[in-house]
Amino acid sequence: MPAFDTLHQFREILNDLPGPHADAVAAAQDRNGQLTKPPGALGRLEDLAIWFAGWQGTGRPKLDAPQIIVFAGNHGVTASGVSAFPAEVTEQMVFNFQAGGAAINQLAKAFGASLDVHALDLDKPTANFTESPAMSEDELVRALITGWDAVNPAADVLVVGEMGIGNTTSAAAICAAVFGGTADAWVGRGTGVDDAGLQRKSDAVAAGLQRHGAAISDPLGALQCLGGREIAAMAGAIVRARVERVPVLLDGFICTSAAAVLHKVNAAALDHVTAGHLSAEGAHRAALTALGKDPLLSLGLRLGEGSGGAAALGVLKAAVACHSGMATFAEAGVSDA
Amino acid sequence: MPAFDTLHQFREILNDLPGPHADAVAAAQDRNGQLTKPPGALGRLEDLAIWFAGWQGTGRPKLDAPQIIVFAGNHGVTASGVSAFPAEVTEQMVFNFQAGGAAINQLAKAFGASLDVHALDLDKPTANFTESPAMSEDELVRALITGWDAVNPAADVLVVGEMGIGNTTSAAAICAAVFGGTADAWVGRGTGVDDAGLQRKSDAVAAGLQRHGAAISDPLGALQCLGGREIAAMAGAIVRARVERVPVLLDGFICTSAAAVLHKVNAAALDHVTAGHLSAEGAHRAALTALGKDPLLSLGLRLGEGSGGAAALGVLKAAVACHSGMATFAEAGVSDA
Repeated sequence: MPAFDTLHQFREILNDLPGPHADAVAAAQDRNGQLTKPPGALGRLEDLAIWFAGWQGTGRPKLDAPQIIVFAGNHGVTASGVSAFPAEVTEQMVFNFQAGGAAINQLAKAFGASLDVHALDLDKPTANFTESPAMSEDELVRALITGWDAVNPAADVLVVGEMGIGNTTSAAAICAAVFGGTADAWVGRGTGVDDAGLQRKSDAVAAGLQRHGAAISDPLGALQCLGGREIAAMAGAIVRARVERVPVLLDGFICTSAAAVLHKVNAAALDHVTAGHLSAEGAHRAALTALGKDPLLSLGLRLGEGSGGAAALGVLKAAVACHSGMATFAEAGVSDA
Repeated sequence: MPAFDTLHQFREILNDLPGPHADAVAAAQDRNGQLTKPPGALGRLEDLAIWFAGWQGTGRPKLDAPQIIVFAGNHGVTASGVSAFPAEVTEQMVFNFQAGGAAINQLAKAFGASLDVHALDLDKPTANFTESPAMSEDELVRALITGWDAVNPAADVLVVGEMGIGNTTSAAAICAAVFGGTADAWVGRGTGVDDAGLQRKSDAVAAGLQRHGAAISDPLGALQCLGGREIAAMAGAIVRARVERVPVLLDGFICTSAAAVLHKVNAAALDHVTAGHLSAEGAHRAALTALGKDPLLSLGLRLGEGSGGAAALGVLKAAVACHSGMATFAEAGVSDA
């Protein structure tokens, strides 16, 4: 039996989430102050290690088993000419993930992460949201459950990513619904559309916002009407991670749109989440700012697949290694300031 | 017999450096364009992999054997009250490096790097540069040779770092000499001096600049008069790496001051160098800007030891893994745009 089988139950879970282990946070802060370095000299790595310690529930955490999950979905809105790539690339890239040839495979290997790929009904794209809701409520719930079930509760940290031709358009529509603002402000070039394509994206988002009216004032309604299955699955996975107290590194704009839905329902829903990177997709910075998240990396990535979140595993690994491995002043016989 | 045994010979080497392998750069660019991702979607990771490929001399490079070297030196200028920590901490931290307890030990382990530590005449601090040249020419040459000899020519990439109580003062003086500007503009809080300590640093730098006059208009003269042995050793190591075509990741402000000396002698001397991170030490951004280097990370580190350069190994590892491991469109059967 899944943890939920209605949207109402999912919403209840989302409104009643556990916090970090306060004793582990205190223990990690105490340890951090004793390590052989000037106070604060490891900068953000110190904050990151303490945050991580709180969710892992120990003052001296480990990072041995990261999990990366890539969800893939197809989008009816591609019929509106919003992408530079044909829709069949979604499935081709799933095969590439399975064969080990994509960027995310290399990043998983480089940082010792497991990688799971879930393709969600690729033969049944969501409806074109300019014409009707992208998903039925039942389809949304099934996508959320796919995400929920995909999480390994024993993982040290979770990175969620996506593949879905057309999904920057869906993410832009969700951000506009959740954060407000015009369609123009939220659309970007995605995999590389030209000016005419960008205009079609903006028109599609504006049409979607107009068509769904009051239904998308509820964030989960916005996810249903405008989202893709892979976006809903990321949302389900992020909530499951929270329930299991597994911290999460966000990937880029599309992943952030899934997180934004959760944040809009419960402003504390992303306390276990750190932004892995700032994407080159134009509106990502605005979305992260609205969520109060400062990205760990800013390297101009705009690939998706979880690639930016996975690249940030290197930073988290550095933080945890220093925090848990360094000697204290007393252990090393080094004079404190 | 060392590669050089006079400052004149070192200067000649520095003025006649090899470039990257142009054919490897071309091969890497070609490969990058065929990988299963939209063009440019890996952002700066793409540029980084191509740069790295050029120095390694292959279109499909590997990153298996990074080398980190930490040089330690003691500074007579500590007598001017410029540090929050006592001078004996330099040697205590060398013991900590040797025992495996410092931040850099954990970072080396996390990224599979070898770590070498070279303590340079710790029982014989440099002279207080407010009173006389920090080193004799012979002492400078010996420090350069220590750095030169420390590099493993078979390393895939080199990170150089330092330990030396008082050395942000030395680095600030070198930057002021090399780049111009006031003492105030280049000094920062280092390991954490208070306002009075910051004023003493600024006064010491101003006094050094005044005392050494024309001698420091030559960059290697500035290194001799104002530098520390560990700063000179980093400079020697960076040049050796270039001669061996081993790319280098810079650490923070002090490491950058060593690089600045080389750049001032030969503006092409740092083509094999990427800035690993932006330090929280105030003037680091100005120094990197003057060198035309954009840091890979910006996480508020200000520890030294090579820690920021080592943390950036994670980014480089990600770049090389993607570039050399990904499938091409043809291999994966994915439709190109």
